[in-house]
Amino acid sequence: MASVLVLSGSPSKVSRTAALADFIVRRLVADGLAARHVALRTLPPADLVAAHAGAPGIAEVVAELAAADGLVIVTPTYKAAYSGLTKIFLDLLPQSALEDKAVLPIATGGSLAHVLALDYSFRAVLHSMRARHVVQSHFVPDSCFLKTDGGYEPDETALGPLFYAAFDEFRRSVHAHEHFRSVDFVRSLVPSATKV
Amino acid sequence: MASVLVLSGSPSKVSRTAALADFIVRRLVADGLAARHVALRTLPPADLVAAHAGAPGIAEVVAELAAADGLVIVTPTYKAAYSGLTKIFLDLLPQSALEDKAVLPIATGGSLAHVLALDYSFRAVLHSMRARHVVQSHFVPDSCFLKTDGGYEPDETALGPLFYAAFDEFRRSVHAHEHFRSVDFVRSLVPSATKV
Amino acid sequence: MASVLVLSGSPSKVSRTAALADFIVRRLVADGLAARHVALRTLPPADLVAAHAGAPGIAEVVAELAAADGLVIVTPTYKAAYSGLTKIFLDLLPQSALEDKAVLPIATGGSLAHVLALDYSFRAVLHSMRARHVVQSHFVPDSCFLKTDGGYEPDETALGPLFYAAFDEFRRSVHAHEHFRSVDFVRSLVPSATKV
Amino acid sequence: MASVLVLSGSPSKVSRTAALADFIVRRLVADGLAARHVALRTLPPADLVAAHAGAPGIAEVVAELAAADGLVIVTPTYKAAYSGLTKIFLDLLPQSALEDKAVLPIATGGSLAHVLALDYSFRAVLHSMRARHVVQSHFVPDSCFLKTDGGYEPDETALGPLFYAAFDEFRRSVHAHEHFRSVDFVRSLVPSATKV
Repeated sequence: MASVLVLSGSPSKVSRTAALADFIVRRLVADGLAARHVALRTLPPADLVAAHAGAPGIAEVVAELAAADGLVIVTPTYKAAYSGLTKIFLDLLPQSALEDKAVLPIATGGSLAHVLALDYSFRAVLHSMRARHVVQSHFVPDSCFLKTDGGYEPDETALGPLFYAAFDEFRRSVHAHEHFRSVDFVRSLVPSATKV
Repeated sequence: MASVLVLSGSPSKVSRTAALADFIVRRLVADGLAARHVALRTLPPADLVAAHAGAPGIAEVVAELAAADGLVIVTPTYKAAYSGLTKIFLDLLPQSALEDKAVLPIATGGSLAHVLALDYSFRAVLHSMRARHVVQSHFVPDSCFLKTDGGYEPDETALGPLFYAAFDEFRRSVHAHEHFRSVDFVRSLVPSATKV
Repeated sequence: MASVLVLSGSPSKVSRTAALADFIVRRLVADGLAARHVALRTLPPADLVAAHAGAPGIAEVVAELAAADGLVIVTPTYKAAYSGLTKIFLDLLPQSALEDKAVLPIATGGSLAHVLALDYSFRAVLHSMRARHVVQSHFVPDSCFLKTDGGYEPDETALGPLFYAAFDEFRRSVHAHEHFRSVDFVRSLVPSATKV
Repeated sequence: MASVLVLSGSPSKVSRTAALADFIVRRLVADGLAARHVALRTLPPADLVAAHAGAPGIAEVVAELAAADGLVIVTPTYKAAYSGLTKIFLDLLPQSALEDKAVLPIATGGSLAHVLALDYSFRAVLHSMRARHVVQSHFVPDSCFLKTDGGYEPDETALGPLFYAAFDEFRRSVHAHEHFRSVDFVRSLVPSATKV
């Protein structure tokens, strides 16, 4: 079964970002994948700041990512970029931590003016970590969330077709990866593949 | 048969950039794909500058791209980014011209200091055009070229394993796309696919 | 008298971008500066595409920029970045063409989603050309223009305080540069300046 | 007396980044400015991760920045960008925390391939915080550091003329700001300044 790690990078206890991550996990599980949401704000802060990848509570997440076929990162948009909390976790990973993985980057934010922040700031970071496929990123404005008793809930219909298209492309890429691994799919498709 | 358009964006008559594009076409053809190199400097300049997508000499390339499964763009690195000639052609295309396509971005340049230019400047552009999969970009320094009588030739061994890895991932993605189109591959892999 | 070159990078004959460049020239002249607008689309296209910096019609603009204290670049936002026409002109300049100059980058565009395009795509380019001071960039949406008989006119009040703040900072920086050149202003302010 | 805050963003106890920050403080003080180095790794980690700008140990630094004329940020290059620790501090500041300030961004790193990381990733962040003048950034490779007993020391001659040019431009901009504040310098230079 293909597996996906979903990380959220908001420092707030009650956040749209974390609510969206929960929603994404529920959808992935409904589609038959193994998925778990880790809110980075719940990891031990002293070890995060000191970049202790082997510390208890952090090492488990690092191992889970290593075993996953795909990674979803949901980050708030702060100061025209991904959050520092998101980056502080990426910093403690090995340089090639995303090798062979599909990645779906999602940003939340208050203003449409932030739509390009993720594409410009985040893609170079993810590709420096050797991501195989970073699918279309998606920006989810505050207006796509409903207020609930305890906090927020994404409004499924407001998310819009581009969100679901990005989501589907990600799922397809995760499955393709799983498939590649199991039946050497490439070789069958490309009989004359160049030997390098 | 899957088809690939290869564009080169150097303004120079004799250029490493164009030589690399020719080399890539030869490799793609040897692997059984249809591939053609269009040097953007040979398109009618007045129509390029005026963004006349329908002008003779330009309309054919636009149509060829629309029909292709994949796009390779080889650009020199000028002023810490892709060349203006490369961008002037992208500008006259429809906004979603890269939808469903695999894209391999390659930069040539004199200095290792330019390695990140493409990832930071180009990915957001390509994804704004709805590219399905922009694979790992690759930077090819001047030292990877041999001087020949008429100009330059890439040194196949100097290109290194990361170049061929990017190339292979691109070819795999082009084939996957062709496969998706022909047998509704996705549906068979993802039986419980969410209806959106 | 301090002098400023104003470049516009739209390929269209009738454009908001060019209208804004004209407006900026009028304001700079009213403030006592020498200023001229060059629409890049009027330069000889074959020489632009071939990067002939010495060609008639181009060499004069290159020389004018070399002599200027400041540069304003007004570009449309195409494919999430500056226009190819804008970049094709920058590409034919010397690498340090902006040394000691103040630069005001301005983008026009239809959607607020493009606000960050200029800051992310353009600043690295301008700084690679050794610009001394790239002031706050500004994004001017279509809604800030009035339709006129012949084309467009910026709506002075709709431009808003941030536009004028960017404009004022640019003018201040241009004057500071002129001042630095004439009275060795730095030395007088920093008596203990480190000798390097 | 003009004042400058120097922040370093390495998580390591012994770091080239912090050594460079110390060196910059010594130079600024020798030039007659007030300057202090704050290593972000020494701030309370739980409050950093939770973005508590008012927490003891953090509030003092926030206030010091608010009162400063200039800011130097020295960050290691991780995953093709500034460090997460650097960004986590910027995230807890007000959106316009850099208004009217001069900023000197400096990156340390192992490979020349990282030279452009700062210009592409960091400038948009700093300008979103309304920085008045972000001077030429500078990349300091590992080869510019000497090993000492306790750790590292920058090699003053290896830093090279571009480092000192960036440093001088920053100092000039800090002094200009102080000057602007004290004698309404602008008005005297620009008698016909447009009223906005």
